[in-house]
Amino acid sequence: MSFEHKYSQLAGAVNLALEDFLQEYDCPQQNLYKAMKYSLSAGGKRLRPVLSLAVCELFDEDYRIALPYACAIEMIHTYSLIHDDLPAMDNDDYRRGKLTNHKVFGEATAILAGDALLNYAYEIMHEDALKNNTYLDRKIRAMAIISNLSGASGMVGGQVVDIESEDKIISPELLSYMHSKKTAALIKAPILSAAALCNATTKEFNLLEQYAEKVGLAFQIKDDILDLKGNFNDMGKLTGNDAAKKKQTFVTLYGISKAEEILAKTAKDAQKSIQKIKLDSKFLESLVGYIVTRNN
Amino acid sequence: MSFEHKYSQLAGAVNLALEDFLQEYDCPQQNLYKAMKYSLSAGGKRLRPVLSLAVCELFDEDYRIALPYACAIEMIHTYSLIHDDLPAMDNDDYRRGKLTNHKVFGEATAILAGDALLNYAYEIMHEDALKNNTYLDRKIRAMAIISNLSGASGMVGGQVVDIESEDKIISPELLSYMHSKKTAALIKAPILSAAALCNATTKEFNLLEQYAEKVGLAFQIKDDILDLKGNFNDMGKLTGNDAAKKKQTFVTLYGISKAEEILAKTAKDAQKSIQKIKLDSKFLESLVGYIVTRNN
Repeated sequence: MSFEHKYSQLAGAVNLALEDFLQEYDCPQQNLYKAMKYSLSAGGKRLRPVLSLAVCELFDEDYRIALPYACAIEMIHTYSLIHDDLPAMDNDDYRRGKLTNHKVFGEATAILAGDALLNYAYEIMHEDALKNNTYLDRKIRAMAIISNLSGASGMVGGQVVDIESEDKIISPELLSYMHSKKTAALIKAPILSAAALCNATTKEFNLLEQYAEKVGLAFQIKDDILDLKGNFNDMGKLTGNDAAKKKQTFVTLYGISKAEEILAKTAKDAQKSIQKIKLDSKFLESLVGYIVTRNN
Repeated sequence: MSFEHKYSQLAGAVNLALEDFLQEYDCPQQNLYKAMKYSLSAGGKRLRPVLSLAVCELFDEDYRIALPYACAIEMIHTYSLIHDDLPAMDNDDYRRGKLTNHKVFGEATAILAGDALLNYAYEIMHEDALKNNTYLDRKIRAMAIISNLSGASGMVGGQVVDIESEDKIISPELLSYMHSKKTAALIKAPILSAAALCNATTKEFNLLEQYAEKVGLAFQIKDDILDLKGNFNDMGKLTGNDAAKKKQTFVTLYGISKAEEILAKTAKDAQKSIQKIKLDSKFLESLVGYIVTRNN
């Protein structure tokens, strides 16, 4: 099966599961529900949940065991975008080619829709462990990995640095730190939580962690390059945003050609890490190429 | 031991545990950490976590097993207040006698501090189950109860109704619904999650649920009365807020004397429910009186 075919298959499984989770959601407030659904169905690449399912397949496990955790991470990702776009934060009007959540539903509902999505992520995981109560230790470990990487020592911590460093010159170290938290944390979360669900050995877990870090970094460098070189039609949001907000990125710090060099090296390192795992890692290798060559 | 003495003892245990959780928190962003600590240490009554510990004692269990869950609920409660006070929501300047979070730290940090507190609540529970991995089924059940009551079908759902019904005439049914979600859900959460941790029987669980619903309702009616009759020094926030925002409350809907009548009846019903449990429920009975007579 080609990489593209496999990716669509996994992303399709994620989309169906997300729809199911939304449909069975007990949310009596129509407006809140619409706001949550609006952003969750806005059609992202589903990269994070796809990574989760791909890791299950790496271990020859049925990827359905990871679906609740994969969907939970997509919800956490989505809530972070809704809050990130708010006027008090990045103040963005477009996301994935559509108006941002608060532009459609108002600020109060957007804040609450974000809160509800974050909370629903945990509801889904707890419900899964309650209903399918085998291997609870692995499920708890997966949840602990996800919650830890999503919080103040992970993604939220990165967002804070991002907000605080607007209009400021920041060091390359702080830039790396910010990216490793703001972006790489939620790339790590699906990979490592799936590894926990599949009971990976410590060695496998460590190699996957190296892979995840490099993939997260590559993803962010590519994002920075696309913000400069991409266009609205491909990206679904206004580009040139970083420069307009005087945000430091890999591109502003190193220049475009050096950034592309670092990107290529990071991608190669990611592939090397995953090759060492001695399992059929072709899909995860190709995925690195997909991230590096994407245009949105 | 007198009720007051016991209450201070339990609230003291909660405060120490909250301090510990904050101290061991891996939050490299000083400003975010300060914002989280500011609201978490603003000195509330700790009613919710106290309820949790009291239920453990009802079942003759060491209340320390419930401390992570009790503190998690206090964090969820605190995040909801931070977001509720935001300009886009209730736009309040004071809370517990201090400036609200966004007034001190700015809106962006307040939003992220709320997000981080909500997330940390789940980090704490997952970490507890990871470290103390006995009775995982009970712990998962406690987490599922807490996350379910905190989300869109619980507390967040109630906040949405609250926001949407500002300036509108709402039915007594919708008012009851709103209060059962916005306030009672987070009163139920500590009581029922502690019952799950203590492996309560179905009958005990149901009686505690009845008790929790009545306590939650009594708490809210008293809140509505205090908003009219209380003063800034006792309440730590501006009163008369509901009227100013044309919010419908038990007082605006029924008038003060009828509201006080409903309050007395609800309190009596709560006590009746808990008496049926045939355990030493004196503290939980007295707690109803405390809620009804409090002046903040």
